[in-house]
Parts: sequence; structure tokens; C-alpha cells
Amino acid sequence: MAICYQATPVKPVVLRPTTTFKPVNSFRCNLSLPSKTLELSISEPEPVFSSVKTFAPATVANLGPGFDFLGCAVDGLGDSVSLSVDSSVHPGQISISHISGDPCSKLSRNPLWNCAGIAAIEVMKMLGIRSVGLSLSLHKGLPLGSGLGSSAASAAAAAVAVNEIFGGKLGSEELVLAGLKSEEKVSGYHADNVGPAIMGGFVLIRNYEPLDLKKLTFPGDKELYFVLVTPEFEAPTKKMRAALPLEIAMAHHVWNCSQAGALVASVLEGDLVGLGKALSGDKIVEPRRAPLIPGMEAVKKAAIEAGAFGCTISGAGPTAVAVIDCEERGEKIGEKMVEAFWNEGNLKAVALVTRLDRVGARLVDSNPR
Amino acid sequence: MAICYQATPVKPVVLRPTTTFKPVNSFRCNLSLPSKTLELSISEPEPVFSSVKTFAPATVANLGPGFDFLGCAVDGLGDSVSLSVDSSVHPGQISISHISGDPCSKLSRNPLWNCAGIAAIEVMKMLGIRSVGLSLSLHKGLPLGSGLGSSAASAAAAAVAVNEIFGGKLGSEELVLAGLKSEEKVSGYHADNVGPAIMGGFVLIRNYEPLDLKKLTFPGDKELYFVLVTPEFEAPTKKMRAALPLEIAMAHHVWNCSQAGALVASVLEGDLVGLGKALSGDKIVEPRRAPLIPGMEAVKKAAIEAGAFGCTISGAGPTAVAVIDCEERGEKIGEKMVEAFWNEGNLKAVALVTRLDRVGARLVDSNPR
Repeated sequence: MAICYQATPVKPVVLRPTTTFKPVNSFRCNLSLPSKTLELSISEPEPVFSSVKTFAPATVANLGPGFDFLGCAVDGLGDSVSLSVDSSVHPGQISISHISGDPCSKLSRNPLWNCAGIAAIEVMKMLGIRSVGLSLSLHKGLPLGSGLGSSAASAAAAAVAVNEIFGGKLGSEELVLAGLKSEEKVSGYHADNVGPAIMGGFVLIRNYEPLDLKKLTFPGDKELYFVLVTPEFEAPTKKMRAALPLEIAMAHHVWNCSQAGALVASVLEGDLVGLGKALSGDKIVEPRRAPLIPGMEAVKKAAIEAGAFGCTISGAGPTAVAVIDCEERGEKIGEKMVEAFWNEGNLKAVALVTRLDRVGARLVDSNPR
Repeated sequence: MAICYQATPVKPVVLRPTTTFKPVNSFRCNLSLPSKTLELSISEPEPVFSSVKTFAPATVANLGPGFDFLGCAVDGLGDSVSLSVDSSVHPGQISISHISGDPCSKLSRNPLWNCAGIAAIEVMKMLGIRSVGLSLSLHKGLPLGSGLGSSAASAAAAAVAVNEIFGGKLGSEELVLAGLKSEEKVSGYHADNVGPAIMGGFVLIRNYEPLDLKKLTFPGDKELYFVLVTPEFEAPTKKMRAALPLEIAMAHHVWNCSQAGALVASVLEGDLVGLGKALSGDKIVEPRRAPLIPGMEAVKKAAIEAGAFGCTISGAGPTAVAVIDCEERGEKIGEKMVEAFWNEGNLKAVALVTRLDRVGARLVDSNPR
């Protein structure tokens, strides 16, 4: 069992494992504290639950012209975290007791090398937890490397779990900061997955220094469905990032900026036709990445022909995402997209039709102390 | 008197001036017709007024990260057009009888070389006018080359005048298309001035092929003031455009796109702080253009220090535009900006505090037939 963290709320200290605690693999951490911690650390919060269970949704980042600054959460798919106060874990530390779900064998149980663990540690630091040990169990509902924010969902579920077990003292921006520490290690310092995974709905990343997020509220009286089609194909984020141009022609910049503006307006107004058009209108990123995913161009064409308002690559791929206003039509669009992946890309694929998740990472169960 | 246009509603024809009409300078036009004209031309509309007067507001284009696709109209400043049915003008033709206002001596009275004339001719073409001659008088309320959409205001006022005198049969997108024909000759095929000059408020240019405009409604219950400070300095659009980079680094592209998205969201939500922040956040265009306008960087700094939510260059300059929620504070900000132009740029400048114009080009007077 990997145990790695002792909170250092007032000043950084080097940990000295006590004689009562003998981890198999111990990891010492001496992480500098954000200023927020100092304010909060005057009184260390007590746990208000003995255990909690949280869920964080899958996310679609980039959204065509929203590359690297816009993402949204999708309902039904996601990761879960069960977290409990555990007297067998050294106070101020966390252990990962169990990982289940599809790709669990690939994931480390060392909290320092696990998305959920890193985010949980960050939240413990922010809260200044030094008297309570925690045990975390992660259930992966999302495949790795699918372009649906798998790492962000784990981080979000863990961050919210730690926050909730201690009474929910941190706000969503602080939880996103914790999630960002995790994303930084896995796929780069980008909040366009972990932002919506925690906050739900559409989230625009306005700035990183300091972090400045803007939640874009899609009108409550309108429906938005995503058709997510994931082929059996590996599209590593690094390779997909390397495909991007370093420099962009002014005309393409202006075009993508205008589509980004139109996308944001369409989200706020609930204009699905406008949203789809903008989503499909990226002239910078998608044209470089789509050819690296066999069949992607045909899949997009098939989606539009079948009535989708728009279609693009989800995150860095390989999942294709189309938008529509009706679940039934979404299923038909999904069939056509799966067919196109098979016919044009020689790839098996699965389709899922899901709604916009408007809530984000949340507590789904809790046990009082 | 310059007379140049005979509408050709069904098929293009070469004009043959008749013996009853002997212009001093005649200009023959054989312009291809847009498809819209064919639909409308089945029955040529009758004039519903003997004369009309219209007004079109000044506009602030670019708006920082909204470069080349976003603009808004500002109240109080603008151009006026008086248009009358004139039996002394050859049917289907238009003449410019009078130009008044500040820079009138620089403007041609040949309708083919005058912003108002070109737009008026386009609207006559769209409506298929061949039986009525028109006489146009232009009053310039806007200085040329100030970065406040002077040419667009003339075009917008003229386009709306012709449309209104024949009963207002064309929609705003068609009028913008007419205005674009004018802008194309003067400053390039950009609708970010003429769009808001005709439609009012904020207008996002989503596409040119075909023209696709999105009006962004700033909430009616909130106030938005612009502080417009125009120095005595010439900033030719061509020179300001030549200063732009041809290629843009990916990081700057993503940043500006995110600010454009935030700007659009702020407009729709009436979030003035967010609007100002985004307006000030351009990392691509303003950094290249500001050094070409003496004192501009100091003017921006002075505006922000005096409490403005944001500040940037209006259009291609030299006017600086700051945003604020209160007229009185706007006046103080204006004073500081004028001071900075003088102290740091050695330029005299005038300040004006004005509201968002939510209406756009409009009929202000009319006389029945």
C-alpha cells in the first residue's frame, strides 16, 4: 500500500514515519503550500463523515475551436471514488486500497503516481489535514486514453471526496487547482477536462495565473445530447499534441476566434444549430489530428449527413463527438458513425448517446461518523 | 452631379443613356446581380415616402481579442443621410447632391466613389429599382480615419435610407451585404463596423461565405459606457494592418481565443468586469499597433488606473476606447486618457463618453408621398 502524504499546514516539514506506522512503500513529500492553505490551516477541519462516495463525469475538451480552453461534462460516464477515515493509515496520510474497473491494472496504487491520489493529496494540503488518515478506493468507469477526460474524472472524484468528507470547505476553483496538479503530471497543465469534471456544464478557462474559470450555463429548458463514438485505437495525447502547428496564419486565427466566440454564444443561448456549426468549424487543430485517427473524416461526414448539428474530435481523440437535440436521432447518428469507423478506418467502435452533465463531480453517498 | 446607377433586375444590361438625360459626368454600371435581387425583382417596389432621413452610429470594431470579427455600435456619434425621390434624376439612378460635416471636402460626390453612394446603389440593385431616381445628401458627423467606423456609418445610413424609402423590404443581413460592397472599396471586406452600424449592439461576424452575423444582446437592464478618446493623429488602416504578424504562435492563439470567448460571454451576461478584462487581454494585435500610436500604452494604463474595466484601440486606431458602467466616472477616465496622450504622446486629444447603441441605423424622419 502506497502512503505518501502528511499535510504541513504552517510550514513545510520533512516527514518522519513513526514507529507505529510501517508502510511497505513509503513516499516522503515536502510540497510547498499555496497561500490558501495558510488561511485555512488555522483550525484543521474534523471529518463530518466516516466515509463518502463520489462520482465525477467524463468530459469533452477542446470542442473544435475551443481548443485548450473550453470543455464540458457529459452525463452517465465517469469515475467513482470511495473514501473513508481509516485509523490504520498514518494521520495526515492517504492510501489507495483498491482500484477496479476496466483499465485498473495499468494504474499505480502509489498515490503520488495516481491521478486520484495526487488530487486527494492536494486537497488534504489545502485543508491542512494532519490528524486523520484516509483510505481511497477508485472505480474507473472510463477507459484510459479515449479523449473523454479519464484522468480528470479520477482527480475530480478524489478531490471532491476529500473535500466532502471534511465538510466541503473548499470551493470549486480550489478543487480544480488540486485537480490541475494531477493533470500536470499526466497530460499537461490544462483545466479543460478537470474544470468541467468538477463544475459540470461548459467551463471556459480564462486564465491560469491566477486560475480564472467561467462556467457557461446552457439553458435549463433545452436538451443537448452528445453522441460519443470511441474506436479501438490508441491516440496518445503526446502524439496528438505533436501534430499541432507551432505557428498559425492570421486568417485561420481570426476564423477560429470567431467560431470560438460563436460557440460560447451558442452555448449560453442554447442555440444547438449554432453550437454544432461552430463545433465543426475548427480550421487549426482538427485538420491536423483527424488524419491520424483512421476513418475520422468519414465519421464526421457520416454524423453530419445523419443529421448531427456538428461533429469533432473529443479531447485529443480517438473518440468522435457529435451533438444533437434528440436521443433517438442520436442513436441513429451513432450507428452511422460506428459504421464509418469500420468501413473507412477498419476500426471497431462503440457509440453512446448521453446528455450534458450540468452538475459535475458530486457526493453520491455518505456515512455519518 | 455624379449619376451612376440603373438597376438591372432581371438580367444584366449595358446602360444606354437616353437623349432626355445628359449628365455632366456619367458612370456606366453593369454589376452582376445577387440571387436575392431576382426573387425580389418580380415587382419593383414603389416609394412609400417622398423623402427620408436616417442616422447610423459610430462603431468600435476589433474590441481587443475580437479582432476582425466583433464590433459594437456607440450612441450619439454618427452620420446622417437625407434621401428624396427626385424627378430630375434619371429613373433607376442616384445622385449625391450635398455633403456636409467635418471632412466633407475630402469626399467624392461621385456615388461610385463614395461610401454612401456605393451602399445606396447596392440596395437599389437588390430592390430592383428602375423607375425612380433618388437624390442623396450626406452629413458626416464622424471624422475620417479615427477608428470609429466613419465609412461604415455613411454606408449604413445610406443603405437604410434607400430601403426605408421603398418600404423597408430588405432585412438587416441584406443591408449589411450592401454596406460590405462599400467597405470593400474603402478599407477591405470586413463587416465588423458595418454590421453593428446597421444592426446596433454587439455583432459577431461568423462567416462571410455566406454572410452569417450573430447579434449579441447586452442585457437591457445594465448600462455600458464607452470612453472614446481620439488624438490628432493619422493612423491609416493600411499601415496599421501592415503591422500585424502573418503568423501567430499557438500559445497566443489559444490565449486570444479564450479571451474572445470570455468577451462574448461577458457581453451576453452583462458582466462589465469580465468584458473589460477580455477587452484588455489581446496579445496579438494591440501589442503591434499600440506602439505606432504615440502615447497609446500610457493612455491604456491611465484608463485602467482611473477605474476603467478595460481599454484597447478602437478599430485600427488612433482612438482609444475604455469601458465603464457610470457616465461620471467615464468623464474622469476620459480626462486622464487625454492627459496621457498629451504627456506621453505629445498629442492633443478629445474625449467623449457615450452609451452602447442598441438600435443601429434607423429612420429619424420621413415625409409621405
